[in-house]
Amino acid sequence: MDRDHHGLFNVLIKITIMAILGEEFSMRLYNPGRIPRSVVPENQEFPMLALSSQLTPESLHYIRNHFPYPSFSPEDWHLDIGGLVRNPVRLHYDDLMRMSMVSLPVTMECAGNKRAFFHPKVRGEQWELGAVSHAVWTGVRLRDILSAANLLSDANEVIFEGMDFGQRTDIKGTFHYSRSLPLAIALHPDTLVALFMNGKPLPFKHGYPARLIVPGWYGMASVKWLRRVLVSDQPFEGPFQKLDYMIYQMNPNLGRRPVTSMKVNSAIVQPTDQSVLKKGIRQVFGVAWAGEHPVTQIHISLDKEHTWQTAVWLDPEQRYSWRRWVWQWDASKEGTYVIKAKAADSVGNTQPLYAEWNVKGYENNSIHQIQVYVE
Amino acid sequence: MDRDHHGLFNVLIKITIMAILGEEFSMRLYNPGRIPRSVVPENQEFPMLALSSQLTPESLHYIRNHFPYPSFSPEDWHLDIGGLVRNPVRLHYDDLMRMSMVSLPVTMECAGNKRAFFHPKVRGEQWELGAVSHAVWTGVRLRDILSAANLLSDANEVIFEGMDFGQRTDIKGTFHYSRSLPLAIALHPDTLVALFMNGKPLPFKHGYPARLIVPGWYGMASVKWLRRVLVSDQPFEGPFQKLDYMIYQMNPNLGRRPVTSMKVNSAIVQPTDQSVLKKGIRQVFGVAWAGEHPVTQIHISLDKEHTWQTAVWLDPEQRYSWRRWVWQWDASKEGTYVIKAKAADSVGNTQPLYAEWNVKGYENNSIHQIQVYVE
Repeated sequence: MDRDHHGLFNVLIKITIMAILGEEFSMRLYNPGRIPRSVVPENQEFPMLALSSQLTPESLHYIRNHFPYPSFSPEDWHLDIGGLVRNPVRLHYDDLMRMSMVSLPVTMECAGNKRAFFHPKVRGEQWELGAVSHAVWTGVRLRDILSAANLLSDANEVIFEGMDFGQRTDIKGTFHYSRSLPLAIALHPDTLVALFMNGKPLPFKHGYPARLIVPGWYGMASVKWLRRVLVSDQPFEGPFQKLDYMIYQMNPNLGRRPVTSMKVNSAIVQPTDQSVLKKGIRQVFGVAWAGEHPVTQIHISLDKEHTWQTAVWLDPEQRYSWRRWVWQWDASKEGTYVIKAKAADSVGNTQPLYAEWNVKGYENNSIHQIQVYVE
Repeated sequence: MDRDHHGLFNVLIKITIMAILGEEFSMRLYNPGRIPRSVVPENQEFPMLALSSQLTPESLHYIRNHFPYPSFSPEDWHLDIGGLVRNPVRLHYDDLMRMSMVSLPVTMECAGNKRAFFHPKVRGEQWELGAVSHAVWTGVRLRDILSAANLLSDANEVIFEGMDFGQRTDIKGTFHYSRSLPLAIALHPDTLVALFMNGKPLPFKHGYPARLIVPGWYGMASVKWLRRVLVSDQPFEGPFQKLDYMIYQMNPNLGRRPVTSMKVNSAIVQPTDQSVLKKGIRQVFGVAWAGEHPVTQIHISLDKEHTWQTAVWLDPEQRYSWRRWVWQWDASKEGTYVIKAKAADSVGNTQPLYAEWNVKGYENNSIHQIQVYVE
């Protein structure tokens, strides 16, 4: 599309969204907040019913913490890069600000998103649909920082430590929130040390002064309040690496595997489950996303997955970015309907009817379904 | 308690709440919003996890609408009292402001609160725990207004019409949101035409300029954006009176009865369902309320209702007012626990283990239970 058509297209998208969401949106009367799932640590999900723009405002972007918010003095903050490097580096905020930066739109999803929908119930935060959000992150490529530190040849894994810390219920001790990445992911050009979110300095709750951003991976990888980067030749054994964010089967003999990149997933935003609609043309509105590959297909079924209809994308195909979609439904016959949405990514990964149950309740990418009544 | 002790008592309550809710509350870092259940009409519930003060801030008080927000010009607004009266009255805002006013703290609950917990699922807004809130309403006694209009002797029922209107899915036509009250309730000294909420003029979303407040009744009685009061000798037949807010049994031969005053009810606020706790002394924190009678008892069971422990009230006994409570739990043994809370009012009404399922999903006052894990 040329520039003029693109502008018009955006206007049409906006009108479509307004038509779906109703006048309250345009009047800015509608202002829900984040949905709390726990108070300390603070865990809050994006209210999926507030989805209008593709970008999630910072104040609505989901928040997932493992510990209370850290206390620190921003003036004293610095980022240390050490371990298996020839040249240990200490970077102050101004040093980072002087480095070359890139901006990436990234849909981030908590590995525990949709945990509330597992049966049997799984312990932990009962996330429903909204532990997923979309923001533009701006920062320095991690590989530029690592190359300044000059990695030694036996470097194999990179560990990231946040300033947040506390105790766990399962093992003794005080831990910082720390995670590691394989070297190839750490050196990937899209892995950032972000200083800005949606064009503004990182809000405190989203990791100010600096946050690791690992596009395409579940959110546990994107360490907030980053203060230390440690290059290692050993697999990292921290509890958020080796105990949490592991897929354990019901049968412990089946072993475990780590949670890494996001699975293809989607949500029906409107109408809502159990709602009553008047006969006529109705819009089914939602969003879909994937991990390392762009999400490319979105289909709707009204007949227990026998047939699938194609919905219309409202956002262009873009790696790491969720896409809003709409499907026009000729709801001319009274009755009770189950509506299912199923997305697929560019390499053919798709959503299962029932995601694999696992002990810690991760990676629930089951097909989302709602029941509605047409009168 | 004398005044000094009362002051100290309040400080202690505050410290207790802070201890339960954690530092984030005192740092004002914690700021969730209302949880959206539908966009148009706007329906949003109080995030129960944000409960700290007894009073709900206006911005978090639950909102239940049947239609889009009304458009009107506040300067042209007036309240008409007509029907079976000797002296029809038109009151402007300033007229009401000059009348004698009273202030009442009132816990208001939507009749559909906790609908999401009915099995099988019931159509309609899927309210969880938070379609209930507590505010101080200030206004003119309705009986003062009715007595100015001078009721005729055959007056029997009073109809209240809001400015909000729209269509329904089940019957043809355009309707205003209208409800009626039996004359005795309309003349009750606590039935108000409120102009203030928590000491400030009514916010638009809560019914500005004037809202009927019927303490002890479910929220559907407290008509927002009130514009007309009509005195009648006939039972009112409006759809929000005769179709909605009726208890229909699964078996239609069992007849129906209208929804009126609030049933005794309670909620466990913290810990949350499926959460994992460290061994030790833990606080179970919640809130309980009732309708026409004050709530006076709150008990906790950990053993499938075999034995009940008494929790401690954090708020004094007061008609129409919910009361926060806390129960200190010696969680010294590892294991999985189901915690149940059950309230009773001053005349012995209590909560059932399972509230009666009904077609429209009203009056769910089932005992609230959560499952937690102690490690």
